[in-house]
Amino acid sequence: MLTNQSTFAIGIDIGGTTTKFGVVNKDGKILQQNNIASNKHSDIHFFIEELYQNIQPLIENFGGNKNCVGIGIGAPNGNFYSGTIEFAPNLIWKGIIPLASLIQNKFGLKTLLTNDANAAAVGEMMYGVAKGLKHFITITLGTGVGSGIVIDGKILLGYDGFAGELGHTIIRHNGRLHKGTGALGSLESYVSASGIVATAQEFLSNDILKESLLHQYSKDELTSQIIYSSAMKGDKVAQKVFEFSGEILGEALANFVMFSSPEMIVLFGGITNAGDLLMHPTKTAMEKNLLPIFRNKVKLVFSILPASDAAILGASALVWEN
Amino acid sequence: MLTNQSTFAIGIDIGGTTTKFGVVNKDGKILQQNNIASNKHSDIHFFIEELYQNIQPLIENFGGNKNCVGIGIGAPNGNFYSGTIEFAPNLIWKGIIPLASLIQNKFGLKTLLTNDANAAAVGEMMYGVAKGLKHFITITLGTGVGSGIVIDGKILLGYDGFAGELGHTIIRHNGRLHKGTGALGSLESYVSASGIVATAQEFLSNDILKESLLHQYSKDELTSQIIYSSAMKGDKVAQKVFEFSGEILGEALANFVMFSSPEMIVLFGGITNAGDLLMHPTKTAMEKNLLPIFRNKVKLVFSILPASDAAILGASALVWEN
Repeated sequence: MLTNQSTFAIGIDIGGTTTKFGVVNKDGKILQQNNIASNKHSDIHFFIEELYQNIQPLIENFGGNKNCVGIGIGAPNGNFYSGTIEFAPNLIWKGIIPLASLIQNKFGLKTLLTNDANAAAVGEMMYGVAKGLKHFITITLGTGVGSGIVIDGKILLGYDGFAGELGHTIIRHNGRLHKGTGALGSLESYVSASGIVATAQEFLSNDILKESLLHQYSKDELTSQIIYSSAMKGDKVAQKVFEFSGEILGEALANFVMFSSPEMIVLFGGITNAGDLLMHPTKTAMEKNLLPIFRNKVKLVFSILPASDAAILGASALVWEN
Repeated sequence: MLTNQSTFAIGIDIGGTTTKFGVVNKDGKILQQNNIASNKHSDIHFFIEELYQNIQPLIENFGGNKNCVGIGIGAPNGNFYSGTIEFAPNLIWKGIIPLASLIQNKFGLKTLLTNDANAAAVGEMMYGVAKGLKHFITITLGTGVGSGIVIDGKILLGYDGFAGELGHTIIRHNGRLHKGTGALGSLESYVSASGIVATAQEFLSNDILKESLLHQYSKDELTSQIIYSSAMKGDKVAQKVFEFSGEILGEALANFVMFSSPEMIVLFGGITNAGDLLMHPTKTAMEKNLLPIFRNKVKLVFSILPASDAAILGASALVWEN
């Protein structure tokens, strides 16, 4: 394999709605990137065909397959050991999809797959705020709540490759129903984008007479972004939504700290645009629920990687790392 | 250092009330053992003196210091990195105690310290039901609730050496007060020996007219052992105590599985004498709260090591391992 300065990897980040991909050099620079819809083809082969039509020209732009060290993919429920996506509730393809081998055969390039949140954690470790750290956790707060756990400088995969599903841990016994999994009270049901909207809707219906900017939006119009901007304008209900969400997130983070004792927790994803509105109640609740020996030790920070880049970088880093 | 057949290690297990110790050979055979009270001397130096008076004769019995490869200690809040016990709520010595160096200086032997629950996990990995496994968790259900987490064949220590405090994770928001830590709703407040007694007392006071063998015991007389034997005699209240405890434990175990994806969870300690009374509701609740990808995969088992041996074996194994 050539490993001169012109070598590159392909990073692919498969999300529920959009699949982003890019050409990445070893320094973590995205040389070119683009995206396609994730949910257009219910047959995985058509999806891979469209991906190939879009990515192969990029590979050619940078010298062709001979300069490409491989393809790294992050996807929900992606399994590093088996190279498969298994029963991903947010993707259009059902059952067990042997994605890594399908893409490897199509492109003729070494292909590695992992969970999308694990890919983001690798990105943080190689190029982000957790650069060089040996023990940290990344939590992605977006459409879903994902997590990547780094122990002794390695992504925690566990016995079967599915470790790090922290969004599905139960934080409120008999709590809110997660429509995708059927679980009651999982973290994702509260602090994902739709979870935050659900909290706002609960507060609005319980407090129907209370003045709030949020009342002007219909149930379908309300988004976490609108709740955020209303909170910034001083809306008390919207502010209370972030206080409530941060309290739940912080309590969950305390539990995670008492499991693996990380040096840092990196929060990542669209919801983190809320900044201090989310960070302050989260940190307060985390510290409050920690055993004294853990208090005021763990750095709780937001990712500094551009959201669109981190997952692509992390996916490509899989190839450089392995 | 001599490493012939006659070499041995000393294993010491410091519990809240009793400190057990033994001479252990490399095959995990305890050649001789004894114990002293843990809480007789509030000055650590007097405790170490008494320990020395009891252990040094054992060392001499097996050929003296020249045949002893070292001393391994398991203790609550023991830190492998620093060799200190830090702020252990169940021990008589307060603050930060440099136990490993104090014992090393007293005996003139290499001394390693870790958390008592981590020591038990090492014992399971070297000599117990988890022999040879790379990914498993041990949960000790006794006076307290401890845990040892093994990832890729190594005890998880985390950034600062305090990883694996799963007994202190919050399982019921705003739940039962833990008198030692002040936390509300931690696992230990429900499934430790005193937690199980507290549950029985709650059930008895809520159901004062309900017939139960447990009513004949005063508040101070009730123990988890009495609750167990009453349940075995068909007492409905006592049986409900184990159902309730198992449901909480199982929900917590599901969260742990979704963190580190272990192949096995080993339950250990006095409470496990309850057998199926505890195992059945625990396993049911664990499976119910798992994401489908984790279901019916994790082996939930009781330790097969004699309770008095596992901690000594695990502590001694620290020396053989390092």
